[in-house]
Amino acid sequence: MNILISNGIILPMNAPDGDNAYFNGYIGIENERIAFVSADSLQADEFMAKHTGDCTQIDATGKIVMPGLINTHTHVAMALLRGISDDVPLMEWLEQHIWPIEGKMGYKEVYDGARLGMLEMMMGGTTTLVDMYPYEEAVAEAAESTGIRAVVCPCPMDFRMEHFENDWRAVKKRFSDSRLVTMMMGPHAIYTLSDNNLQRSISLSGELGVGSHVHLAETKTEQDNCMVQHGMSPTEYLEKEGLFSTKTLAAHCVVMSDHDIEILARHKVSVAHNPQSNMKLASGIAPVKKMMDAGVNVAIGTDGASSNNDLDMWEEMRTASLLQKLATMDPCSIPAYTALQMATVNGAKAIGREGELGILAPGALADILLVNLEKPHLYPHTNLVSELVYSAHSEDVDTVIINGRIVVENRRCLTMNAQEVCQTAQKHIDRLMSK
Amino acid sequence: MNILISNGIILPMNAPDGDNAYFNGYIGIENERIAFVSADSLQADEFMAKHTGDCTQIDATGKIVMPGLINTHTHVAMALLRGISDDVPLMEWLEQHIWPIEGKMGYKEVYDGARLGMLEMMMGGTTTLVDMYPYEEAVAEAAESTGIRAVVCPCPMDFRMEHFENDWRAVKKRFSDSRLVTMMMGPHAIYTLSDNNLQRSISLSGELGVGSHVHLAETKTEQDNCMVQHGMSPTEYLEKEGLFSTKTLAAHCVVMSDHDIEILARHKVSVAHNPQSNMKLASGIAPVKKMMDAGVNVAIGTDGASSNNDLDMWEEMRTASLLQKLATMDPCSIPAYTALQMATVNGAKAIGREGELGILAPGALADILLVNLEKPHLYPHTNLVSELVYSAHSEDVDTVIINGRIVVENRRCLTMNAQEVCQTAQKHIDRLMSK
Repeated sequence: MNILISNGIILPMNAPDGDNAYFNGYIGIENERIAFVSADSLQADEFMAKHTGDCTQIDATGKIVMPGLINTHTHVAMALLRGISDDVPLMEWLEQHIWPIEGKMGYKEVYDGARLGMLEMMMGGTTTLVDMYPYEEAVAEAAESTGIRAVVCPCPMDFRMEHFENDWRAVKKRFSDSRLVTMMMGPHAIYTLSDNNLQRSISLSGELGVGSHVHLAETKTEQDNCMVQHGMSPTEYLEKEGLFSTKTLAAHCVVMSDHDIEILARHKVSVAHNPQSNMKLASGIAPVKKMMDAGVNVAIGTDGASSNNDLDMWEEMRTASLLQKLATMDPCSIPAYTALQMATVNGAKAIGREGELGILAPGALADILLVNLEKPHLYPHTNLVSELVYSAHSEDVDTVIINGRIVVENRRCLTMNAQEVCQTAQKHIDRLMSK
Repeated sequence: MNILISNGIILPMNAPDGDNAYFNGYIGIENERIAFVSADSLQADEFMAKHTGDCTQIDATGKIVMPGLINTHTHVAMALLRGISDDVPLMEWLEQHIWPIEGKMGYKEVYDGARLGMLEMMMGGTTTLVDMYPYEEAVAEAAESTGIRAVVCPCPMDFRMEHFENDWRAVKKRFSDSRLVTMMMGPHAIYTLSDNNLQRSISLSGELGVGSHVHLAETKTEQDNCMVQHGMSPTEYLEKEGLFSTKTLAAHCVVMSDHDIEILARHKVSVAHNPQSNMKLASGIAPVKKMMDAGVNVAIGTDGASSNNDLDMWEEMRTASLLQKLATMDPCSIPAYTALQMATVNGAKAIGREGELGILAPGALADILLVNLEKPHLYPHTNLVSELVYSAHSEDVDTVIINGRIVVENRRCLTMNAQEVCQTAQKHIDRLMSK
């Protein structure tokens, strides 16, 4: 399919900063990739002429046209667990509420929970998610069925290594040729993995030629226990174990020394920053500004919906910026354009797809949003970058294209029956909680 | 006009905590007040019989019915300045960007800016705002024209006392009989008011029989300067000056000692907490939990849209809860129901209208929201209080009733032409910035 987007305000995310970051123009899409991005209507005319009778036209008047958002850390199927337990201490949350329900979740629950989370994400302009959970095969199947791009990370944990081995084999077998699904290894965390099982994950990363996605330094407890057990920080420990020899995306990185940050920078480890989850679980504030200043690539994630409680990248961008201004006591920290970069280009870099995702450029994959600016909370228009980060809501996303396919149009999801997806999720959780 | 709301999930905000906070039921409205709130359909039948032929029916199936949100600190006309300056140091923000534009704003600009902000607020479920700005007469007129409830606070500041004197006289004259507009004095802050002018405000408060709304302890600079100038904290200084002999609502209260908090508690001063503005301007975290534990009534405000950058009480509730969990490193701090109380009953108390606003009860004023739960980001339904605070968006507000009048219906504002309000604001800011 070919698509021509006309008269939009194009925000390609290739400018170095927020000055001159957008212009009025056109984008042509041929099948799954962007053919051209231009301010010149002649290019649009030529594109139309080339694809006469086989080109969908989208009028983007009054709309921002920008790359899709990349959610670099989530457990999408946890949308099923939204709200089942809030405002309780972390261990009570896990042991008495989350884990007992998760223990009852199988392939079908993960699949349907993932579809609910993906519906929410797509409606809010997330076009790629990086997921870590049991039954990543189900998450991959859900991604294919909904049309969202997913990096699925089968997740080694000591107490379910057998499940993990089956899961990664199944993903590899079924989704090797997928246009939407790619894979990373998901070694869960230092506190759930023995040295042996961590090494198994590292060796599989090498064998499969994929990177690793890990929870790292989320809490002071993790740091303290690691010091007792290994006499070093979680980051130092993972360096020693060799994880960072694989291309690594580390989620959270809240409790970080200068040495830890230096290690991440040296090994080109990317960070998935999850500000709302870190606040809700009272984990702390990740030193995002400090990490970025040290040259670390920092992207954004929502974490799962049970510790957030939504999968909304707009809120996460806004919170990332506001929280860092607070942490550094500097209102200039993480300006709006930097937050947008974190959610787009930095996300692409974090999953090894720089230049191909998170950007509007010829040859890049066509993961594109249209954001409707005709909303009272976005008026008056003075600085559109600032509007997107400090004022825009998920509901302002009007149209979403993923891999060249229109998946949301005028705020209607074309790939799912929203009501059915919601009701199916409700039935699952009602059953799981009544058992 | 009489209204019957049927089959809703009623959240009256009179429960002590989130357990058993809601039930399925009916609400009857006679003119501007609530006639009954009940789970019993017989009462609904009786109400219908009593008002045959003169009763609007609203089917609230699948919707939360709750009190309207009370925004206890804003400068609503600053919606006009949204986005004109972000990510810059505070004094540069004020001196180079905000003040030069504000200096050019007159009655008409404040009126139209206020209408834009009120449109955004009403669409997001805010039914009452407490406003402080020059030309509160224009804000009062805008409130009457849009149908929102407003507490307008004419604002003494040393450099424009003459303007202030005219403003409060005009408000008093024009809006004394208003059903929507009430008045408080708005002594701006200790750093913009001489002792004399502060005393003038205090004496007018007494004369008019109204309370005071003041900026207090927003930044460390304010605290430091006050120590140098007066040898005491801003809170101690205002106590000494006698401001707290008037019923006081203090906005921000970020830099607070235990003694300051004790003073607020002793004088029953209410606090308007503005978490997103305090983050964006890098002011700090108000000790909300500590103040509440000391018995201080803490409500929520958005501040102006140029330091936020929206007027969204849902985000503000969520941020208030998450930020306090972080500040106290306790995930149990400010649970969801407490955040809802802050935005409703505590707000009513802060403006001296406890029992009349912020609550659904017979005799209370009919300021009521219907929140649509049929959204992917609100599924599955497990704990509706948690959903409202941690997952709901402004856009989930479906219908808004203020003072017994339906002002928003199915997400359409009935009292304003939204497009015209937005375009008018755009014209103003384009002109103000081009001068």
